[in-house]
Amino acid sequence: MVKKLQEDMLKLGVCYYPEHWPEELWEEDFKRMKELGFTYVRVGEFAWTIFEPEEGTFSFDLFDRAVAKAHEYGLKVFMGTPTATPPAWLTHKYPEVLNVSQDGISYQHGARRHYNYNSETYKRLSSIIVTEMAKHYKDNPAIAGWQIDNELNCEIDAFYSEADHTAFREWAKKKYKTLDKLNQTWGTVFWNQTYTSWDQVYLTRKTVPNSPNPHHMLDEKRFISDSAISFAKLQADILRLHAPNQWVTTNGMFKHLDNHKMTNELLDFYAYDSYPNFGRVIEDDSEKPLRDRKWSWNLSIVRSISPNFAIFEQQSGPGGWVTRLEQPSPKPGQLRLWTYQSIAHGADIVMYFRWRTATKGTEIYWHGINDYHNLPNRRVNEVEQVSKEIHQIGEKVAGSSYKAEVALVTSYDNEWDGEFDKWVGPYAAKSNDLWIKAFQYNHVPADAVYLRNETTIDELKKYKALVYPHAAIVTKQQADLFREYVNQGGKIIFGCRSGYKDETGQTYMKAFPGYLADLVGVTVEEFTRVAPYEEIPRINFKGENELEANDFNEVLHPQYDVDVISTYTNTHFEGKPALVKRTHGAGTSYYFGGVFNLKLASLLIDELQLNNYKDQFDLPEKIELAIRSKVGNDYVFLLNYADTTQKIVVKRKMRDAITGNIISNKVTMQPFDVLVLEED
Amino acid sequence: MVKKLQEDMLKLGVCYYPEHWPEELWEEDFKRMKELGFTYVRVGEFAWTIFEPEEGTFSFDLFDRAVAKAHEYGLKVFMGTPTATPPAWLTHKYPEVLNVSQDGISYQHGARRHYNYNSETYKRLSSIIVTEMAKHYKDNPAIAGWQIDNELNCEIDAFYSEADHTAFREWAKKKYKTLDKLNQTWGTVFWNQTYTSWDQVYLTRKTVPNSPNPHHMLDEKRFISDSAISFAKLQADILRLHAPNQWVTTNGMFKHLDNHKMTNELLDFYAYDSYPNFGRVIEDDSEKPLRDRKWSWNLSIVRSISPNFAIFEQQSGPGGWVTRLEQPSPKPGQLRLWTYQSIAHGADIVMYFRWRTATKGTEIYWHGINDYHNLPNRRVNEVEQVSKEIHQIGEKVAGSSYKAEVALVTSYDNEWDGEFDKWVGPYAAKSNDLWIKAFQYNHVPADAVYLRNETTIDELKKYKALVYPHAAIVTKQQADLFREYVNQGGKIIFGCRSGYKDETGQTYMKAFPGYLADLVGVTVEEFTRVAPYEEIPRINFKGENELEANDFNEVLHPQYDVDVISTYTNTHFEGKPALVKRTHGAGTSYYFGGVFNLKLASLLIDELQLNNYKDQFDLPEKIELAIRSKVGNDYVFLLNYADTTQKIVVKRKMRDAITGNIISNKVTMQPFDVLVLEED
Amino acid sequence: MVKKLQEDMLKLGVCYYPEHWPEELWEEDFKRMKELGFTYVRVGEFAWTIFEPEEGTFSFDLFDRAVAKAHEYGLKVFMGTPTATPPAWLTHKYPEVLNVSQDGISYQHGARRHYNYNSETYKRLSSIIVTEMAKHYKDNPAIAGWQIDNELNCEIDAFYSEADHTAFREWAKKKYKTLDKLNQTWGTVFWNQTYTSWDQVYLTRKTVPNSPNPHHMLDEKRFISDSAISFAKLQADILRLHAPNQWVTTNGMFKHLDNHKMTNELLDFYAYDSYPNFGRVIEDDSEKPLRDRKWSWNLSIVRSISPNFAIFEQQSGPGGWVTRLEQPSPKPGQLRLWTYQSIAHGADIVMYFRWRTATKGTEIYWHGINDYHNLPNRRVNEVEQVSKEIHQIGEKVAGSSYKAEVALVTSYDNEWDGEFDKWVGPYAAKSNDLWIKAFQYNHVPADAVYLRNETTIDELKKYKALVYPHAAIVTKQQADLFREYVNQGGKIIFGCRSGYKDETGQTYMKAFPGYLADLVGVTVEEFTRVAPYEEIPRINFKGENELEANDFNEVLHPQYDVDVISTYTNTHFEGKPALVKRTHGAGTSYYFGGVFNLKLASLLIDELQLNNYKDQFDLPEKIELAIRSKVGNDYVFLLNYADTTQKIVVKRKMRDAITGNIISNKVTMQPFDVLVLEED
Repeated sequence: MVKKLQEDMLKLGVCYYPEHWPEELWEEDFKRMKELGFTYVRVGEFAWTIFEPEEGTFSFDLFDRAVAKAHEYGLKVFMGTPTATPPAWLTHKYPEVLNVSQDGISYQHGARRHYNYNSETYKRLSSIIVTEMAKHYKDNPAIAGWQIDNELNCEIDAFYSEADHTAFREWAKKKYKTLDKLNQTWGTVFWNQTYTSWDQVYLTRKTVPNSPNPHHMLDEKRFISDSAISFAKLQADILRLHAPNQWVTTNGMFKHLDNHKMTNELLDFYAYDSYPNFGRVIEDDSEKPLRDRKWSWNLSIVRSISPNFAIFEQQSGPGGWVTRLEQPSPKPGQLRLWTYQSIAHGADIVMYFRWRTATKGTEIYWHGINDYHNLPNRRVNEVEQVSKEIHQIGEKVAGSSYKAEVALVTSYDNEWDGEFDKWVGPYAAKSNDLWIKAFQYNHVPADAVYLRNETTIDELKKYKALVYPHAAIVTKQQADLFREYVNQGGKIIFGCRSGYKDETGQTYMKAFPGYLADLVGVTVEEFTRVAPYEEIPRINFKGENELEANDFNEVLHPQYDVDVISTYTNTHFEGKPALVKRTHGAGTSYYFGGVFNLKLASLLIDELQLNNYKDQFDLPEKIELAIRSKVGNDYVFLLNYADTTQKIVVKRKMRDAITGNIISNKVTMQPFDVLVLEED
Repeated sequence: MVKKLQEDMLKLGVCYYPEHWPEELWEEDFKRMKELGFTYVRVGEFAWTIFEPEEGTFSFDLFDRAVAKAHEYGLKVFMGTPTATPPAWLTHKYPEVLNVSQDGISYQHGARRHYNYNSETYKRLSSIIVTEMAKHYKDNPAIAGWQIDNELNCEIDAFYSEADHTAFREWAKKKYKTLDKLNQTWGTVFWNQTYTSWDQVYLTRKTVPNSPNPHHMLDEKRFISDSAISFAKLQADILRLHAPNQWVTTNGMFKHLDNHKMTNELLDFYAYDSYPNFGRVIEDDSEKPLRDRKWSWNLSIVRSISPNFAIFEQQSGPGGWVTRLEQPSPKPGQLRLWTYQSIAHGADIVMYFRWRTATKGTEIYWHGINDYHNLPNRRVNEVEQVSKEIHQIGEKVAGSSYKAEVALVTSYDNEWDGEFDKWVGPYAAKSNDLWIKAFQYNHVPADAVYLRNETTIDELKKYKALVYPHAAIVTKQQADLFREYVNQGGKIIFGCRSGYKDETGQTYMKAFPGYLADLVGVTVEEFTRVAPYEEIPRINFKGENELEANDFNEVLHPQYDVDVISTYTNTHFEGKPALVKRTHGAGTSYYFGGVFNLKLASLLIDELQLNNYKDQFDLPEKIELAIRSKVGNDYVFLLNYADTTQKIVVKRKMRDAITGNIISNKVTMQPFDVLVLEED
Repeated sequence: MVKKLQEDMLKLGVCYYPEHWPEELWEEDFKRMKELGFTYVRVGEFAWTIFEPEEGTFSFDLFDRAVAKAHEYGLKVFMGTPTATPPAWLTHKYPEVLNVSQDGISYQHGARRHYNYNSETYKRLSSIIVTEMAKHYKDNPAIAGWQIDNELNCEIDAFYSEADHTAFREWAKKKYKTLDKLNQTWGTVFWNQTYTSWDQVYLTRKTVPNSPNPHHMLDEKRFISDSAISFAKLQADILRLHAPNQWVTTNGMFKHLDNHKMTNELLDFYAYDSYPNFGRVIEDDSEKPLRDRKWSWNLSIVRSISPNFAIFEQQSGPGGWVTRLEQPSPKPGQLRLWTYQSIAHGADIVMYFRWRTATKGTEIYWHGINDYHNLPNRRVNEVEQVSKEIHQIGEKVAGSSYKAEVALVTSYDNEWDGEFDKWVGPYAAKSNDLWIKAFQYNHVPADAVYLRNETTIDELKKYKALVYPHAAIVTKQQADLFREYVNQGGKIIFGCRSGYKDETGQTYMKAFPGYLADLVGVTVEEFTRVAPYEEIPRINFKGENELEANDFNEVLHPQYDVDVISTYTNTHFEGKPALVKRTHGAGTSYYFGGVFNLKLASLLIDELQLNNYKDQFDLPEKIELAIRSKVGNDYVFLLNYADTTQKIVVKRKMRDAITGNIISNKVTMQPFDVLVLEED
């Protein structure tokens, strides 16, 4: 049933809101899109009241005219189902569809996602509008496919309506069958939380002092994800039934949603909304922040969901809401850079958000490529340049794959458990960020791996090395998989706080790191958070390079033959092992009893002998290296995130795939410039 | 109907709470007030339960005795209507009168303003008590006038009771007639907010994530203002009917209330409650904060409402509540200084808040001129000194007008829109603060102008120059008015983010600055917020004086003949125009594509050749200069806000109006000292 | 009826949760406890659903088996009544038992203390379970006694359910008899808060802007305390009735609870839960923070409640919840140090919390002495060492008394009033903290005195000196008591803001410091908070030692013969008295018109000639000195809170009570080490 995204050419497009603009502008707008070389237009995702102005009355005229006009200019349309923003008549008549805060206060009409996924009423009314739209547009040649809802779980990712509580109770019954099993799983014997009747079971509610049961909270996240997927499935099934030849996708990527599962089960491909400009304003007091370049990692996660994917919303200009989010304008070259960032990581379709800045509503500062008026501007020109370049490289790059020999591992379980677990979540966030930077600054292309029950040894064996910084929850099955991976020659790195929890979020009655102990060859003898007002422990690395071991420290107790790579060099831990290496079958495991930093991760990248392409290029830190490969041909993307020129060295003759020029030896890249190189 | 404040003498007074104190103290208190030279006493504003101990039962005995006793000592009384604090019996019996938070939680008895303006019940009960009081006191010769309620919109300025939602719906119906018009005005097509029935329309409610529709929020502020005025009108009409010979006023000044409209339509004059001591404790990380001197600007706004006004509450000592607000004691001289600050800006009546510090309740730390006891203290002595001085200058100064040849322009629309609009409100607040400082430190007396539909060219022509820093909302009518003002010889300065919004808060489909473009001669080519972690742009001024251009930058595109005064000197904007000047008819316009700072404003004050009286005085920055003028005589107020002596030079012979001494050449002003000079 | 704690030996124990662990572990666990020399086990406090799995059905099997097994290994059991965590069936069936936020939102099942003390339903169901348990265990020889509930008022100390409002109304009726008296006491004439019917009276509710009546808030705290005590009494009475030979206690110590009253009226002794490790992570920007050593002061307060007391929960390892509270592991020696800290201050029983770290629930990071597994660890070893040492000193120390000749005075009234009173509460907190430090760093053992109506001159006369830093509320009776204390030779020190309030929290109509004026010989002439952005006043001390006088300044006006010890040295207060001394009868009073700092407190300690044992020891600041004394024998505890070695000098021969070694002259104490010295 499911079709993968399979474009023979990189394609561009744009989001458009015909309902916002005087109809007399449409023609000029679509004509200009065609001139810009666009293929796709997305429409409709916030237009329920246009389609159904009152309950049961449907009207497709406005969008029919808009779609026909777009088609006249050769554009293909992605149609959004409009369920992200219910009509005023709907929430007013059926207040039970509203989402509710944990405190019991309803969210009301006036913004987005004020509905809940589990209301039978909302599901019924959503089915009706989606069915009507699908039946109406199924044979329209202008329609390429469908976007389900818009940004599921964006803006809010927790739901506490009565319908959610009820659905959660059913979900729990189905999962646990008996209350006894639920009680064990949630550890309810602690603090006398034992449930003796199913009607006592709710989603988490207001507690003293805002500390619900952690195992319950973990299940709540799983339930939210299942609810969102179930809501998407309701729509996907309708669209498949009525419009089997049109693509079905949705756009993301937001929290409390297993996008891998959703994509595997429901979608043809996954679409991402990429706004790297957030990186320029979000406070980030970490070492050498990546800023907009951090979005490369988001794109790596998207790639793990859908190897070739679409960008449904690519940042087009300054961004923000009237009430919050305050982004500067992209500098000359940045829109182009960010488009190539998406392509370098696997995007085959890129649609800009949006054609023209809205003149009304909360998003009057989320600028489109055009300003409020229709006067020429620099951003449109920059997009036009990208469009022309893509005509040079688009056929070659489309359908190619990103090359990586290392992956950073995580799991939804650990991400969701880590959200509230102050004893591991913040460490995982920090180490992940750190490893991402280490890969970027050392020019090591890297993938993301989300560990799932279905994950096979073959999926892991693609990688020479895996890094799983703080794998708190590790099941026996996962530990076995890692052991097999290493036995077969893989290298794997773990940090502190690994392996001590099972999939319920309860701790094992085992020495840390639980089922990983024999793989890494040590147990943990002593451990501590770093005390905020006391001396910070330090470690060496192979006897040199003294490093701070901030945040958390474990003293390792070798149980098998291990090489001690680092020991502590001060405090009462002095001389005790902090980082060990163990040979296991054909491979190697590393266990570090701490939270990673940039220096240590860089040392470990050398230790792992990961390919950083130093034989081919000399690249400054500010340049990202990414490679897409197809039938043996590599397309090397070099992206300059700096607002200064950067000197690089290409150590052999290569061809600039955009200009066709031969490139070799010293090259100066302009601020925000991009090179796509191929073999000469 | 309306009487203007017309005093033949500056007058002092004090707020008194006879209900708080043992009756045996009254005589001594009033006697001492008389000795201090006081004219007025304000009473009654929190005494509803005294007047109406149970519904429908009225009792005036206590206040009758107090008023008679005050009158015995020659004092005149301002009587407060007691509606700011409903009785416990009222809110308990009629909970529908309570104000409600946006989340739907009622505010309860125990503080102030826990009622809403739109409850029919509250309006009915308020009418009854005000009618009873008016009828009772209308012929009492001791009663000078009435204060309606107390500090409307103080403590809380948002109201979400059921009565408010209902009244808002009616307000919107009356304003928009059709839902179609309302939908257009609020831009509801965005995010599918279209209303299809009036019963779907509410005040803003809880949204995900606290971002209601901005045009709706702007109308909500207008509605709150109209509600407060309507509530005041209910009382004003009763007072006019029954007590036509007594003054009607109210005291302020608080947010979400068009005080100009209220005063024009309902009051004889406006009264202000002046607490400059807040300036000593409020965190202010701006350049050279004005501290207590900032209250001079508040007084300028009050003057724009009511050219001669009263101070109903003049700070009397240390201030604060038991639970918050923590002010130090005024230093010796500060109470006197602040009294003269009020007078210098147009106050003809000054009443101190309050006679004696409360011994009970939330305000036991809002000190009166007397402490808890009746022992002598320094503050009473200081007030006595002021009283004596006023006998020297009071007749001359009473009824005179503040002299200013420049005004800082704003509008309620822009203030209210800017409250939630992060892309202009904070800039407006910053630039306003900055210009106020520049005027103060350069000794340029300045007025405030609130632009209204009724504003005429004659009102503007009084000023040689206008500064409207970030006039986001500019209607065509306003743009025409400014053009005419400049044509006739005026000078006007705008900053970035001007002219791009209409009165709904929607953006024009025009190049910035919208209808102002031909007046200022440029459109905006590029614009950006300043990125927080990147290089800050700089500009020159006439080729020199390099200045930071923080917060926001626009690159200006000259469309007509303009002088480029400033260009950017770094970043990719280098060499592009940032500040231009255009001659238009007999006048000149300036447009600066940024947010102002103190240095730039000072340079522009020179450029505008505003009178800073340098030919008459040499004044250090710490001294404020203010001039009140009557029938050709100027009274020059020099106010020393420093706790150190300041050396000034008076360049010709003048007379100290208080002492009668001749002043000339070098004079040393003591800490917090005041000079009032007149022509010899 | 009440039995005092009377142990012939110091005793150790541990908290255990048999319901958490597989029954097959119990035997091994109890056996190991016995090997560790433990006497006591606490169980049962969170096990209501185990005891009563459905309403009216009781089951004691699990705990019977566990108690029997513990007894088999010689352990004695403290049984907790399980009312801190109601069963899910209870709160689901009877939602009226739930606690409610001030905003009216119920706290729900899922954590702790989500019930209210005043629900008749909850009281009924609590009586039933406690009765059943008491009847079941009254003759069980393994049961030493009972812990009522668990940590009353922990996690939340405010209650606003309907039952609380109703009970408060009754409480107020009983206290005030007439509304007139209530209105006077709460000063309701201010802001028109007068109550005209009892049904208008509630606990404080949501007000604009979160500022309820302060006298009402003070009564609310008294009511909460009375409610908690009344709830404890309900249980104590049942336990006394059925199990008259078993101890009755509870564990604390939390806010809004008069623990002295509760202990005097209901308990055999008071138990404290001591977690000094919080001191290592809590932000403390004061001078030289005490960190974990601050817990010595908590223990001093416990001692004022119960001269010999028990520790029911002594920190056992790293601590925290999954969702918050993030403590490092204790360093080697710290668990031992903290155990001795408890003993030095009067604990005769110390139970560790807990045997083994929970593997599930919110507290999986509140580590026990054992980790999740049963493998050996350093913490168990450390506890074993303590146990052995206690066999050496236990008989000598048990039942002995802490020796102090100075006390820091406070009262519940002032603590509760100061919670919301920004004009005295923060100063009291700061000065208290400061004096505690001054006593610690100067090695002056000090007691806490909570002033009560019952406090007698004899209780005070035990002390050579009293320090009552900011005694805002001072009744005439208390002033008389202090005068008598000084007359009889005592020394007393007051700071600013003393004596100006009566017991309702209203201010006297008297010059400060009210009824204390003749005792201290001055009134206050001027006063001010220190302005945050202005020059900070300074004072000298006997003409030298210039000190900052931060926070608040009073200028003192001598009314009687006083010695001026300090005058201000700058600002407009220059030369005015700031600190005076007055001889009164055989004693001396001191009044300082400011907030204390460490230097001034140290100077005053010298001035008061308090015994700091300099003739017996030379001690660095990092060492705490505490002395327990019994029948003429002193046991000197020296506690090293530093993670570095400390050099001390013992100036005469003493015996190390643990090792039996003779100690004299220079001794080096290891990090976190403890010495217990006795006369040779």
